[in-house]
Amino acid sequence: MRNGRDVWVREVGTRDGLQSIDTIFSTEDKVRWIETESLAGVPEIEVGSFVPPKLMPQMADTMEVVRRLGNKDKFKISVLVPNFKGALNAFQSGTHQLNYVLSVSEAHSLANVKKSVNDAIEDYRKIIKFKKENAICESVKVGVGVATAFGCTIQGEVKPADVFRTIETLVAIGADEIAVADTVGYGNPAQIRHIFKEAVSICGDIPVAAHFHDTRGLGLANVDAALDVGVRHFDSSLGGLGGCPHAPGASGNIVTDDLVFMLEAMGLRTGVDLEKLLAVRVFMESCLKGEPTRGAIARAGTPKNFQQK
Amino acid sequence: MRNGRDVWVREVGTRDGLQSIDTIFSTEDKVRWIETESLAGVPEIEVGSFVPPKLMPQMADTMEVVRRLGNKDKFKISVLVPNFKGALNAFQSGTHQLNYVLSVSEAHSLANVKKSVNDAIEDYRKIIKFKKENAICESVKVGVGVATAFGCTIQGEVKPADVFRTIETLVAIGADEIAVADTVGYGNPAQIRHIFKEAVSICGDIPVAAHFHDTRGLGLANVDAALDVGVRHFDSSLGGLGGCPHAPGASGNIVTDDLVFMLEAMGLRTGVDLEKLLAVRVFMESCLKGEPTRGAIARAGTPKNFQQK
Repeated sequence: MRNGRDVWVREVGTRDGLQSIDTIFSTEDKVRWIETESLAGVPEIEVGSFVPPKLMPQMADTMEVVRRLGNKDKFKISVLVPNFKGALNAFQSGTHQLNYVLSVSEAHSLANVKKSVNDAIEDYRKIIKFKKENAICESVKVGVGVATAFGCTIQGEVKPADVFRTIETLVAIGADEIAVADTVGYGNPAQIRHIFKEAVSICGDIPVAAHFHDTRGLGLANVDAALDVGVRHFDSSLGGLGGCPHAPGASGNIVTDDLVFMLEAMGLRTGVDLEKLLAVRVFMESCLKGEPTRGAIARAGTPKNFQQK
Repeated sequence: MRNGRDVWVREVGTRDGLQSIDTIFSTEDKVRWIETESLAGVPEIEVGSFVPPKLMPQMADTMEVVRRLGNKDKFKISVLVPNFKGALNAFQSGTHQLNYVLSVSEAHSLANVKKSVNDAIEDYRKIIKFKKENAICESVKVGVGVATAFGCTIQGEVKPADVFRTIETLVAIGADEIAVADTVGYGNPAQIRHIFKEAVSICGDIPVAAHFHDTRGLGLANVDAALDVGVRHFDSSLGGLGGCPHAPGASGNIVTDDLVFMLEAMGLRTGVDLEKLLAVRVFMESCLKGEPTRGAIARAGTPKNFQQK
C-alpha cells in the first residue's frame, strides 16, 4: 500500500456529504476543508462531482475547487461523474481520478439516471475509450462505483450474480478501480463477506473499494467484515456528513473519524493523524447551518493512553 | 443452541441500562418490560441486581421483580450480584442464574469494589462453594462477568495475559458461564478476536458471552469480530438504554434491536421477533423522563422486503 499505509481511506464527505444537505459551502470553505484534511494525512479526497448545477447547486463549483487546491501533488484528488459529459469535464479539471457511478439495480438505474444498467455500462465503455484515444487524459485514473450492490429501496433485493457479472464487465472494459457500494445501508456483514470475497477475486490487481452508508448502524461492522476478506480501500465522510435533511431515516456514509480510530486501534496504519482530523471536523461543523453530524470518537474521545502507531 | 437459536441474546437494559439513568422505573413497569420482551422471544433477561439500595435505588425492588414475573418458565431470568451477600439474596429470589462481576483491572477493582482482583476471585469461590453445599441452590446457574477486559479508564491498558489467567481461574472454580466485558467501550475488532479466540478455547464447553458497550461506535463491529471466533452469546440493551446522564461521553450497551437486526440479516436465528421487540422499545421509552435512547433500526426501519427466517 502506498507510503506505508495498510488501509486507504477516501474522504467523500466533500461530495457525498455536501450533495445531501441544504447548506451550500462556499468554494473557499470547501478548499480549506479539503486542504486541511489532506494535511491531516487523508490520502484521497473526492472533492466534488460534475453533475448539472440545476440538479445539484452544491456541486456547481467543482471545476473551481480542483483548480484552487494549493497542494495537488500531496494527495489524490478524485471527482464523481454520472455520465460521459461529466467525464469530459473531469478530464479537463486537473483531477487525478474520476469515479463514474452506475447502479446494478435495474429499477434504481432507470429511476435515477433514466438508463438501463446495460446502457450505463456502455457509457463507461465510452469514457474509457475516450481516455485511451486522448493522450491528454492518460494520467487520469478512471474508477467506477457499483451502486445498490447490497439492495435497493425500489426493487429490494439485488442478486449477487448481477453484481458479479457487472464487475466482470467493468474489469474487462478497463476499470482502474472498482468501488462496491451499499448505497442505501442495507448490507450486513455476512453479505459483505460474500460479495467482497468474490469481487476481490474477480478484480485481481485492480483495487476494490468499499463504500458503506451507516443507515442501519452496521457500517463499521461491515468494514470489519470487508477487512476480513481482504478489502483495504474505504470511502467515508467526516463527521458522517450526509443523509437527507428531509428524510429523518436517512443517514450518511460511515464516519471518517470513527473509521480511522477503528483501523488505527486495530493496528492498521491509515497515515491519518486522528487529532488533526478532528480539528478539521470542527471547522467543517462550523460551516453547517444546523445539519447534524455523527461520530462516537468526537463525543467520547479515544481510550486512555491510546496512541497511533 | 437451545430451541433452534443460533445466537443467544441476553437483555441487560433492565439492569445495566436502568442502573445508569436517573429515572426509576416502577416495579410494575419493569415487570411489563421484562414480560413483553420475553414474549418477543428474547431468551434471557437480566432483570436487576442485588446491590445496596442506598447505592442504587433503581435496583431496590429486584427481589420483588423476580417474584412478580408471571411467565418464569418461558425464559431465563438472571440477576447481577457484586458480592457474596448479593449472591445469597439471588439464591433466594427464584432467579435461574446469577452473574457475579469482577474486574480484571486491579485499579478498577480497587476503586470500584475496594477489593483486589484476587480477593474478588475469592468471593466468587465462596459463592460457588455455598451453592455446592446447599441443595436449594442446585438449579441456579452461577455465571461470572470479567469486566474491563479490553481496557480501563483508570489504568488504561489491561494485559491480555491477565484476562486469560483470570478466566482460567474462574473456570477452575466452576463457573457456569463466563461473560467477557468491554465495560468502557475501549475494544476494537482485532483485540476482540484475540481475547475471545483464547477465551473460547480456555472455556471449552462453558458458554462464553460478550458484553459490549458502544461508547466509541465499534459495538457491532466487535460483535462481527466475536462471531468470527465462535462467540454465540451477546449482552445488549433495548434502545441502547444506559450510559450516564451526567457524562455526555458515556454510552450504553450495544442496542438489542440493532443487534437482533444484524444477526437475523446475517441469517443467524435469534428467536426474537424484531417487530414485537420494537413495540417493547416504544413502551420502555414511554417510561423515560427525558433520557435519550439510541438505535438505527428504530429510526430507519428494516430494508425493503426484509424477512426474518
